[in-house]
Amino acid sequence: MQATDPRDDETSLTPRSKMAGSASEVICGLAKAMTLKVNQIVHHEKSKYQDVLIFESSDYGMVLVLDNVIQCTERDEFAYQEMITHLGMFSHPNPKKVLVIGGGDGGVLREVVKHESVEEAVLCDIDEAVIRLSKKYLPGMSVGFQHPNVKVHIGDGFKFLEDKKDTFDVIITDSSDPEGPAESLFKKPYFELLHGALREGGVMTTQGSENPWLHLKLIAELKKSCGEVFPVAEYGWTTIPTYPAGQIGFMMCCKDSSRNVMKPLRSLSGQEEDKLFRYYSKQVHEAAFVLPKFAEKALR
Amino acid sequence: MQATDPRDDETSLTPRSKMAGSASEVICGLAKAMTLKVNQIVHHEKSKYQDVLIFESSDYGMVLVLDNVIQCTERDEFAYQEMITHLGMFSHPNPKKVLVIGGGDGGVLREVVKHESVEEAVLCDIDEAVIRLSKKYLPGMSVGFQHPNVKVHIGDGFKFLEDKKDTFDVIITDSSDPEGPAESLFKKPYFELLHGALREGGVMTTQGSENPWLHLKLIAELKKSCGEVFPVAEYGWTTIPTYPAGQIGFMMCCKDSSRNVMKPLRSLSGQEEDKLFRYYSKQVHEAAFVLPKFAEKALR
Repeated sequence: MQATDPRDDETSLTPRSKMAGSASEVICGLAKAMTLKVNQIVHHEKSKYQDVLIFESSDYGMVLVLDNVIQCTERDEFAYQEMITHLGMFSHPNPKKVLVIGGGDGGVLREVVKHESVEEAVLCDIDEAVIRLSKKYLPGMSVGFQHPNVKVHIGDGFKFLEDKKDTFDVIITDSSDPEGPAESLFKKPYFELLHGALREGGVMTTQGSENPWLHLKLIAELKKSCGEVFPVAEYGWTTIPTYPAGQIGFMMCCKDSSRNVMKPLRSLSGQEEDKLFRYYSKQVHEAAFVLPKFAEKALR
Repeated sequence: MQATDPRDDETSLTPRSKMAGSASEVICGLAKAMTLKVNQIVHHEKSKYQDVLIFESSDYGMVLVLDNVIQCTERDEFAYQEMITHLGMFSHPNPKKVLVIGGGDGGVLREVVKHESVEEAVLCDIDEAVIRLSKKYLPGMSVGFQHPNVKVHIGDGFKFLEDKKDTFDVIITDSSDPEGPAESLFKKPYFELLHGALREGGVMTTQGSENPWLHLKLIAELKKSCGEVFPVAEYGWTTIPTYPAGQIGFMMCCKDSSRNVMKPLRSLSGQEEDKLFRYYSKQVHEAAFVLPKFAEKALR
């Protein structure tokens, strides 16, 4: 069995690695497809919102799959979690109150609470199943839930934000892709809600419609939407082997027009970085906003 | 039919996308495998040195495959060719005489002759079949052979270099992977030959044993070998969707110990860059040497 989806072009709406597999293999929905070998399925259920699958792979550890799309693997999740978190956190001078929308695996929380300034980290995920199963099968990520400053709210991010005004310093949207339940999280009304929920000088980071090799038009649209709401809207990215083409990007926005989010506002010593991070560093932060010429031109 | 090679770890010697396919699909040799959909095989032969296959893919244009390993696709080859070429060329103040070892598809030559200082660009490839078939089926790459300053030598790179002393300003080794015919091109005796063939202040770039996510030990060994021969030896990389994990790296070495190859020594205006390049820019040059924390630590 092979999945070879011919819609692998810039207008495709099937980012991340899409599963079209059986118990033996997971293949992403691209004409250039990717395969992970499955050792065993450890859990499979239909939650209230989505299909949730956890399998043990031959070489990438445990893998979380939502609605047939690989969300994270134990081997390379740190690249995504560190980058979506620290690009935003190090662009804020003193983040005390942080909100994570989505991120039910706990990995972003794990990174957020590495910042000693954080007094409260709230996670709002619509699907309790992801949190429950991450706690059971993905201890390296769900460790984030154990920190005393963490609060969890099960519910719709949109609704949660509605009455939150001037509340958070940093908001990180760690959603699934712009098809299915997370669709509204890639559109202007959502960015307006985020803008309202952020305090002065607040920063928001969101999963950025994948990568320039495959989804340049989507990224350009996302950047335009964000730029209509925030005075600062930049696209950064990270490498990560199990996402299509080996990369995923982020939109980073700030309410303060004088802020340059492409350079960290705070930084740690090399020694502290070595201890805390496996992917992020202050140099990686700056390099994350350097795009290949073709992408830089398209997003200029 | 599926190829799922369990040897997808840091010690694997099967970099690049390895074909284990039929006429309908090409799959790389990783437990995390990659698939390209084949529209049609346009040419297949056993040359004197290797199995040479050219197929038309559904979404990546024509694809050149040597000994079952994808070498380049028309859709993303520019990332590899521009980066392996311009990282070296822009690290030399005035490259006049340039040698390409391998690179029979012509793509590196195409990039080399974009530098107006170049008086002679010599290509030495062991296999005439690659050059012949590239001229027939890969016109976007083989255009490099048409420049009046280009000379082609069919033969073994090792032998070609033996009597070349103080001859070249830049040498680029665009080889296949460190298994098979190119094995010796990843070892110290070869780097010693390159050192001897370079003029004072000369620069060499070589395909760098793939990428840190999959082959960190190999890269560390390669860097060590290069560092024993050259006073400057740095590892840089580029994204490229059709190589494993979406990246490939390069070793860049210089005979002049005072030179920092991680910043371009010369640069063009943004407008000139826009006209000449699809991937490279002076910012991309610098970012290419920023590694994820785990890789930076391992290669420190």
